[in-house]
Amino acid sequence: NSRYILRAAAPDAIGILADVAGYIARAGLNVIESQDFGDSDTARFFIWVEFESPDGFDRATFEAGFNALAEKRSMTWSLRRKADRPRALIMVSKGDHCLNDLLYRHRRGQLGAEITAIVSNHEDGRWLAERHELPFHYVPVTRDTKLEAEDRLRQLIRETQSDFVVLARYMQVLSDGLCRELEGRCINIHHSFLPSFKGAKPYHQAHKRGVKLIGASAHYVTADLDEGPIIAQDVSPVDHRLTPQRMAEIGRDIEARVLSRAVTAHAEGRVFLNGIRTVVFE
Amino acid sequence: NSRYILRAAAPDAIGILADVAGYIARAGLNVIESQDFGDSDTARFFIWVEFESPDGFDRATFEAGFNALAEKRSMTWSLRRKADRPRALIMVSKGDHCLNDLLYRHRRGQLGAEITAIVSNHEDGRWLAERHELPFHYVPVTRDTKLEAEDRLRQLIRETQSDFVVLARYMQVLSDGLCRELEGRCINIHHSFLPSFKGAKPYHQAHKRGVKLIGASAHYVTADLDEGPIIAQDVSPVDHRLTPQRMAEIGRDIEARVLSRAVTAHAEGRVFLNGIRTVVFE
Amino acid sequence: NSRYILRAAAPDAIGILADVAGYIARAGLNVIESQDFGDSDTARFFIWVEFESPDGFDRATFEAGFNALAEKRSMTWSLRRKADRPRALIMVSKGDHCLNDLLYRHRRGQLGAEITAIVSNHEDGRWLAERHELPFHYVPVTRDTKLEAEDRLRQLIRETQSDFVVLARYMQVLSDGLCRELEGRCINIHHSFLPSFKGAKPYHQAHKRGVKLIGASAHYVTADLDEGPIIAQDVSPVDHRLTPQRMAEIGRDIEARVLSRAVTAHAEGRVFLNGIRTVVFE
Amino acid sequence: NSRYILRAAAPDAIGILADVAGYIARAGLNVIESQDFGDSDTARFFIWVEFESPDGFDRATFEAGFNALAEKRSMTWSLRRKADRPRALIMVSKGDHCLNDLLYRHRRGQLGAEITAIVSNHEDGRWLAERHELPFHYVPVTRDTKLEAEDRLRQLIRETQSDFVVLARYMQVLSDGLCRELEGRCINIHHSFLPSFKGAKPYHQAHKRGVKLIGASAHYVTADLDEGPIIAQDVSPVDHRLTPQRMAEIGRDIEARVLSRAVTAHAEGRVFLNGIRTVVFE
Repeated sequence: NSRYILRAAAPDAIGILADVAGYIARAGLNVIESQDFGDSDTARFFIWVEFESPDGFDRATFEAGFNALAEKRSMTWSLRRKADRPRALIMVSKGDHCLNDLLYRHRRGQLGAEITAIVSNHEDGRWLAERHELPFHYVPVTRDTKLEAEDRLRQLIRETQSDFVVLARYMQVLSDGLCRELEGRCINIHHSFLPSFKGAKPYHQAHKRGVKLIGASAHYVTADLDEGPIIAQDVSPVDHRLTPQRMAEIGRDIEARVLSRAVTAHAEGRVFLNGIRTVVFE
Repeated sequence: NSRYILRAAAPDAIGILADVAGYIARAGLNVIESQDFGDSDTARFFIWVEFESPDGFDRATFEAGFNALAEKRSMTWSLRRKADRPRALIMVSKGDHCLNDLLYRHRRGQLGAEITAIVSNHEDGRWLAERHELPFHYVPVTRDTKLEAEDRLRQLIRETQSDFVVLARYMQVLSDGLCRELEGRCINIHHSFLPSFKGAKPYHQAHKRGVKLIGASAHYVTADLDEGPIIAQDVSPVDHRLTPQRMAEIGRDIEARVLSRAVTAHAEGRVFLNGIRTVVFE
Repeated sequence: NSRYILRAAAPDAIGILADVAGYIARAGLNVIESQDFGDSDTARFFIWVEFESPDGFDRATFEAGFNALAEKRSMTWSLRRKADRPRALIMVSKGDHCLNDLLYRHRRGQLGAEITAIVSNHEDGRWLAERHELPFHYVPVTRDTKLEAEDRLRQLIRETQSDFVVLARYMQVLSDGLCRELEGRCINIHHSFLPSFKGAKPYHQAHKRGVKLIGASAHYVTADLDEGPIIAQDVSPVDHRLTPQRMAEIGRDIEARVLSRAVTAHAEGRVFLNGIRTVVFE
Repeated sequence: NSRYILRAAAPDAIGILADVAGYIARAGLNVIESQDFGDSDTARFFIWVEFESPDGFDRATFEAGFNALAEKRSMTWSLRRKADRPRALIMVSKGDHCLNDLLYRHRRGQLGAEITAIVSNHEDGRWLAERHELPFHYVPVTRDTKLEAEDRLRQLIRETQSDFVVLARYMQVLSDGLCRELEGRCINIHHSFLPSFKGAKPYHQAHKRGVKLIGASAHYVTADLDEGPIIAQDVSPVDHRLTPQRMAEIGRDIEARVLSRAVTAHAEGRVFLNGIRTVVFE
C-alpha cells in the first residue's frame, strides 16, 4: 500500500529528468522502476516512476510541491497508489475470446485494472459474466437506437465510475462524438496487423492476399476508424494450408494476448499519447 | 548426384497423390522428403518430392512414363537433379545488405542457387562482386534509357543462362512488359510487411504510424507494383525509441533473411504459384 | 461426420506412401490433408491422413483391407471418425492457468479432445470445474497415500473412459509404474525450456542464471522425470528487470499455450512417438 | 563528435539517479537517451546515458566534478565520446558465419566497435580478412603450444590496443588464467540455448533430445566453461524433419545475429556485469 505510480509529460528541455528525479529523492522516496523518453520528433518528454514511500509519507505535501514543479515545466501529471487500480468497463459482442482472457487475468489479480461491468449488444457474454460474478448489461443496438444505446453506455460509465473502456471485440462502430469523449481512454482490438487489412473480415482479406503472418493490433479509439494510436501488436506465422476459418482461430489467440497486454500497460499508466503514436514503457 | 527433385501441379482430384507416389515406388526410387497440398479454394493440387535413385536409374524412361501420367492428370511438372542448381542473376542498387547475405550463403553452398552475375544501376556493388569473383555488370538507368537498360538486362539473362532474377533492393521499377516476361521467376524484397506501407520510404511510414512491429516481404514481381504473390515474410518488434533510421537498420536484417529464405525455397523448387498466392513447402 | 483420421507407423521402405495413398484412392476417398515422414535415423515411416468419405462408405470393409496392407508392411495404425474426439482427463494442483486455457478451448470446441473430468490434489480447481459443468474429483495425496491415490486415478480413468491424461500443472510425481502404464498417453507441461532447468522452481533457476529467454515444454510423461519425448515448446524474451515472480507470470502464458497446442496435436492424432523424440504433423 | 556515452554502477541508494541526472543537467548537457536500473537482489544501481554537449563543453572539468560525485556514491564509471569506438580483436577457427556477419556490420559502420585484427588457429579466415583489408594473424594451437599461443594473443591484444576480444566460433578453450585476465571483456558465442546442451556438438545433442526450438547464447567468458554471464540469446523453431546438419545450418544464422547483437551492446557500453548475470540496456 506504500507503492505509488507517478506519470508526467512535458515539453522536452534540459533538466526535466533531473528536476523530477531530484524532487523524488528529496522526498526520501525509494524508486522501484523509472522510465523516461524524450521524443526529438514531437519535442515531448515522458516519465513513468514507481516508488515506495516511507512511513509517514505526506501525499498532500508531495503533490503541492510537485504542482509547483509541474507549472514551471508545463507538465501534465498524475499520481496514484499502485493498489488503486483504474476501473475498466468491458464491451463485447458475440466472440468472447478476449473477454475470457481479460476475466482470467482479472481473477488472478494480474490485469492491473478493476473490471466494473460487462456491456454487450448480445446476450452471449452473460454466461461468462455470471461465472465471474460481474455485472452484465445488455444494451442492444439497432440503426435507430444507436445514439440511445450510447447514452446508456455513458450512463453506465458514470454509474460504475469507470476510468476507461475496453472494446473486447465489440462489433459496433462508436459515434464520432463518443470517440472524442473517450479519447485516450478507450482501447480497441483490431483483428489484423494494422495498417494492413482495415475494415471488415480481415482474416478473409489476409487469406486472399496470401500473407505468411497474421496479426492483431490494440489501439486507442479515434473518430478515424482503425487509425488510432497503436499500443501493442503481435503476429503468428501462417501458411498455405490454413483456411480463413483456421486463420481466425489462430488470430483469436493473438487478439486475446495483445489486448490484455495493452489493457495492463494502460492500467499501469505505462502508455502515453504522443501525437498519433504512443510511448509504451513496458 | 543421385538425388532428384520432382515438382508437379494439377487440377485436384481423387487419386493424384496415389498416382504420383505409385509411379515413384514402381520405379524403385527412395523418397527422401515429400510434401503435397490440395487447395479446395483454387481446386489445385501441388506435390514436391525429393528422391534418391538407385544405380542404373534411367531418367529418360522415367520421364517418358511420367509424361503419360501428367497428360492423364493435366499436370505441369519438372524433374531435375538436385545438384543442378538453378541459375540466379542478382540485381541491386546501392544498399548491399541483401546482396551480402546472398553472396555469403552462395559461397557456403547453402543458397540452393548458382549466382551467375550481379547487375546494378550503380557501381557500389562492384566491390562485393569482385571479392566473391563474380561478374558485375553496370547498367545505368535514366528515364530516357530505361527500355534500353531492360534490353541489356534481357541480354544478360540470356547470355548467363539465368533461370531466375533476384531484385536484392533494386530500386528501379521494371516495365510491365518485363514483369510479364519474368512472371514466376523474378523475386523482389519489399521493405515492409505487405500489404502495409506499399510504395516508397516504408520505414518512415511505419515510424509515422507508430507500429510496434516492422517487417519485410519477399514476393514474385508482377506488373501490379507490390501486389505480387508473397513467398516469405518476417517481422521484428520496435518501440517508441527508434528513429526511422534505426528502424531501417533493424529492417535491413529482416530483409536479408527474408529474401535469402525466399530465394532458397524458390531455387529448391518448393514454391508454387497458386493464383495470387503461393504454396511454399518449407 | 463423414471425415476420418487415419494414422499409421511402420518400418520405412520403398512404396509405403504409394501403398497407403493407393489404397485410399481406390476406396474413392477424398484426401483433405496428408502428411508423412520417413526418419532415416530410426528407419521409421509415419503417415497422417484426414479424408472425407462419400455416401455409403463401408468402414468395416475399408478396415479389413487396410489390415491386410498393415500386416504386409508391419504397420501399426488406427482409424477414427474426426467427430469422435479422444477423451481427456485433466489433472491439476493449485495453479489453474493451464486448466483455464484448456477449458476455454474445450468450451469453444477447439481443443480437439473431450474433457471427461478434472482431478486434483487440492480443492482450488473445483471453482472452474463447476463453472464449466464438468465433474471434479478431489484426490488428496500424502506420502503415505500416494499409491492409493494413484489407484483412485486408475479407477477414474476407467470409469470416465478417458483415452489420455493431461497434467496441467499437477505437482505430484507419478510412480514409475503409472508412468509406464500411461506411456504415450499422458502429457505434462514443464515450466522451463527443457532440457534447461529440470526439477523444481525453474523460474528461480532461470532468474539466477540470467537467461534472456524463458520457456515451457509439453512432453509425454516417462518414468525418467523431465526426460520424456517433447511435443511442443515455446519461449518469450525476458530481461534484467524481471523478478522471478514476474518471470513466472510471463511463463504461465507460455505454459498455457504450449500445453493446449500439445493436447490438440495429440487429440488430432498428429503426434507419433519416435524413440525418445516425437514426430508432430502440425 | 559532440555526443558522449556515460556509464556508471554503484551500490543502490535513494537519490543516485537524481545526483547523476542533476549533475548532467547543471552541466547544460542534452540527454539523448538514458536508462537506469536498480537491482533489489544485488543492491546495485546501473545507469547509461547518451548526451550531447554544447559548444565549449569542458570535458576535464566535467570529469573532475563527476569524480567527486562518484567518490561519494562509491561509483565506478566511464565517459567516452560516442565516436571513439572500442577496439575489438576477433578470434575465429574454421566456421566463418559469425566472422562474416561481424565484418559486414563493421564495414557499414553499424557494429559499434572498431575491428583491430582477426586471429585464428586456422588459415581459413585469411580469405575474408583480406577482402576486408584487415590484419590477419595465424596463431596455431597444439596441446604443447597452447600457453605460447596465448602469450602471442596477449601480445596482439596489446599491440593492437584492443579493448575487448570476440570469440566468433573460436574452438579452443582459453586457459583459466587468460579467462580471468579478460574478465568482462571477452565475449563468446555458444551454439546452444544455454544452459541446455553445454559442451561439444550441441546441435547433435539437440537433435537427439528432440527439442522443438534451437538457440544460441552470447556470454562473457569465465574460467567456468559455458557458465559466464549471458548477454543475448535467441532461438528458432525446428521440427522432426531436420537432421543435425540442417539444424546446424539454421543455428549458424542464430549464432551470427546473437553474437553481433551482443558485440554491439557491449561496444556501446550498454552491458553491465551484475554478479553472474548481466544488465543490458538495449
